[in-house]
Amino acid sequence: MVSADIVARTQELPHENTMKIPATFERNETVRIEAFSDGVFAIAITLLVLGINVPRIRELGAGGNLGSTLIKQWPHYLAFVTSFITILAMWVNHHRIFSFIHSTDHPFLYWNGLLLLFITFLPFPTALLAEYLLHPGARVAGAVFAGTYVAIAFAFKGLWDHASKNGRLLAENVDDREIRQITMQYRYGPLMYLAAFALSFVSVGLCVGLCLCLAVFFAVKGWPTLRSAALFLPSFQRKR
Amino acid sequence: MVSADIVARTQELPHENTMKIPATFERNETVRIEAFSDGVFAIAITLLVLGINVPRIRELGAGGNLGSTLIKQWPHYLAFVTSFITILAMWVNHHRIFSFIHSTDHPFLYWNGLLLLFITFLPFPTALLAEYLLHPGARVAGAVFAGTYVAIAFAFKGLWDHASKNGRLLAENVDDREIRQITMQYRYGPLMYLAAFALSFVSVGLCVGLCLCLAVFFAVKGWPTLRSAALFLPSFQRKR
Amino acid sequence: MVSADIVARTQELPHENTMKIPATFERNETVRIEAFSDGVFAIAITLLVLGINVPRIRELGAGGNLGSTLIKQWPHYLAFVTSFITILAMWVNHHRIFSFIHSTDHPFLYWNGLLLLFITFLPFPTALLAEYLLHPGARVAGAVFAGTYVAIAFAFKGLWDHASKNGRLLAENVDDREIRQITMQYRYGPLMYLAAFALSFVSVGLCVGLCLCLAVFFAVKGWPTLRSAALFLPSFQRKR
Amino acid sequence: MVSADIVARTQELPHENTMKIPATFERNETVRIEAFSDGVFAIAITLLVLGINVPRIRELGAGGNLGSTLIKQWPHYLAFVTSFITILAMWVNHHRIFSFIHSTDHPFLYWNGLLLLFITFLPFPTALLAEYLLHPGARVAGAVFAGTYVAIAFAFKGLWDHASKNGRLLAENVDDREIRQITMQYRYGPLMYLAAFALSFVSVGLCVGLCLCLAVFFAVKGWPTLRSAALFLPSFQRKR
Repeated sequence: MVSADIVARTQELPHENTMKIPATFERNETVRIEAFSDGVFAIAITLLVLGINVPRIRELGAGGNLGSTLIKQWPHYLAFVTSFITILAMWVNHHRIFSFIHSTDHPFLYWNGLLLLFITFLPFPTALLAEYLLHPGARVAGAVFAGTYVAIAFAFKGLWDHASKNGRLLAENVDDREIRQITMQYRYGPLMYLAAFALSFVSVGLCVGLCLCLAVFFAVKGWPTLRSAALFLPSFQRKR
Repeated sequence: MVSADIVARTQELPHENTMKIPATFERNETVRIEAFSDGVFAIAITLLVLGINVPRIRELGAGGNLGSTLIKQWPHYLAFVTSFITILAMWVNHHRIFSFIHSTDHPFLYWNGLLLLFITFLPFPTALLAEYLLHPGARVAGAVFAGTYVAIAFAFKGLWDHASKNGRLLAENVDDREIRQITMQYRYGPLMYLAAFALSFVSVGLCVGLCLCLAVFFAVKGWPTLRSAALFLPSFQRKR
Repeated sequence: MVSADIVARTQELPHENTMKIPATFERNETVRIEAFSDGVFAIAITLLVLGINVPRIRELGAGGNLGSTLIKQWPHYLAFVTSFITILAMWVNHHRIFSFIHSTDHPFLYWNGLLLLFITFLPFPTALLAEYLLHPGARVAGAVFAGTYVAIAFAFKGLWDHASKNGRLLAENVDDREIRQITMQYRYGPLMYLAAFALSFVSVGLCVGLCLCLAVFFAVKGWPTLRSAALFLPSFQRKR
Repeated sequence: MVSADIVARTQELPHENTMKIPATFERNETVRIEAFSDGVFAIAITLLVLGINVPRIRELGAGGNLGSTLIKQWPHYLAFVTSFITILAMWVNHHRIFSFIHSTDHPFLYWNGLLLLFITFLPFPTALLAEYLLHPGARVAGAVFAGTYVAIAFAFKGLWDHASKNGRLLAENVDDREIRQITMQYRYGPLMYLAAFALSFVSVGLCVGLCLCLAVFFAVKGWPTLRSAALFLPSFQRKR
């Protein structure tokens, strides 16, 4: 099982100039970071279910009714669905960002690490919101929930701003219009989540509702340009 | 470590026409979605064991007997095995579907997201059934359990129907007979799980038994055509 | 990002005969099953730690000493280490088996599914043994622990026997001596674990000790032949 | 889907001499071990959040305030962040080490297994520290926490020392200066963590603070040379 790397290394010599090799190596480094991040996203999204409380028999009591108990804990399902869609949207947008980036540097890696920190943390505020949505602590739980989303939105913005400033880490033949569009989107993202955070002090219901809408919005906005990575194909192929 | 992509990009020019490149790019996008889904399947199937209750010493009491306690919680093992086989069958069928699909669009991605949502949710109804199978709440637990399976079956049907309608997202040289066979299978799947759901109001035992049978059936049905992806090899190779 | 598959498909035509293509396709199918299994192994091995009890402050009591409490729960660490080495050894041996296998069929897939079922189940008997090793239920816990290992050993034997019978699923140019050596090893494996199971009724300590030794033995035995997959390189390369 | 291996095998014949093939095969073996380790790192880092306690409503009491309860459990967040950065730093350094290594042998695999054992164990001391940092058991919890880090540091040192001794498992064209730099770093690593361990008997706060600083230090030190794997490109390319 001789790895494909060897083929690549041996064969491209007549085709590619040596100048491009460091670039492709860094592309490879990006791929590795993306694979690790993907694993973290997949695990975090699957761990969310552990936050849904399984009512124990002894807690239910003698005259307890399982059906109504399950219905009463609807905040658990709401929190689960909101965080599920959010992590899915983040995964999509993470891929979208990485499809434009062809090299890495230190600050980029720290921003990505910060982003993963908040994502692995997400099951905690999700479980907290599920536990307290119908109780006196609801505002605090909502604030922690929306606050984590604010932190994620800022980490995303930091990651993108660092990578895209003067096209620092971007590929050369990127569509400027799309870059500006993403920059715009990440400018409003943190503001919207800050609004959700503020709403948690007025109405936790509205706060969670806005978070859910934003997750759906970012999931939908992220997909289209997932495809646009095709722009990186050598230009003569695209011109066709 | 120069990635294989580069080789591919450079070398195929003389062999392939440029028209095919967007198609292959989308194929690549499909692979990425499949890899993320695979991760979610693998984690969900391994988390099921956390739903099996480890009887604590203090709960056992002084005269408690571990052996009989373990035997008495057989519903935990039954629920574990049923959900294990179901997720395995879903993984197999997910691959089977994806082996026919060569491009993606928005609704397809939403159907896949919905499917993953129900799959990551599965450990909850599994633990619920394990807790209540021998208790008054059994019918509710059985209905939630079978209901989740109904939802999964409909998500699978939606995913396939969207992809296969007029061959929308399918590869060009697909065997029509097999496509029709899958369509048939996904037409009856949701009906069978609806029957299991209805059975939960009559007898939870029959309900779970039917779910177990269906899981085994779909696991067995899924494997054979896993191979049939060979159909995608260029036709002159298949004709041989 | 044009996938390497395309290159492979286009370029090998002049080099390889078409007869080999179905074989290589099935090889690819094996790889996919192996990747899913690898994910399950990695998750199961990491979930083991959740079985180690974190003594809560309120359980410790006023005069409680954390140090002695942690030392007293040494069975948790023993069970953790034993199961960790066992899963690691199983991963190594799973790779070893798959390095000889070049095609799959239905019964092979069922054997592999059965093996994964027992592996994902392993955190449960591990936590059980940890909880009861120093308590009256120790023999039952030890029997469940060793019994799960017996089941895994039989699943491994079934997987290998099915694949190797008349060289059914093996590659063509396999070293017969090594095949016989593995067959021998898998013949004695279940017997050794049955002995550990029997020992659990005499002394749980000896039972767990034997399981630990067997795990180390299989981990050590598995590695060497991991390399021998090099045998599959075309013979003129090996003769060198 | 013919795997890229086949292409590699067929095509490199005119380019590479047969002597290199066993070497590249072993490189491939290294990749497989690295992939499994990566999975374990990703899961362990995501499981840490399960150690953060979600205060239950009934524990909060009637007059309980969620906000102050959440603030009071700041040791949970501190332990979470410290272990998160540590695992991230270990992942980075693991890649760094593996980027220099081109073959494996038995002791190397045992050292790697030992390292993974301590890493999967890490969620336990993390949860322990979170529970006891503000309670009488703090010193014991701090010692267990720092002690696990000492074990990890020694496992890393053992892995590297074994691989780099006389360049045993290293690639041929490695930059000696960098090898010496890593050797130096891994010589001081265990000493620093031993200092943190000793500090736990004086002040748990200082102990955890030092662990946090070391994690940040190793994360930062690890990244730069992640890139230096470019050194492995054939020398005529590097000279450019």
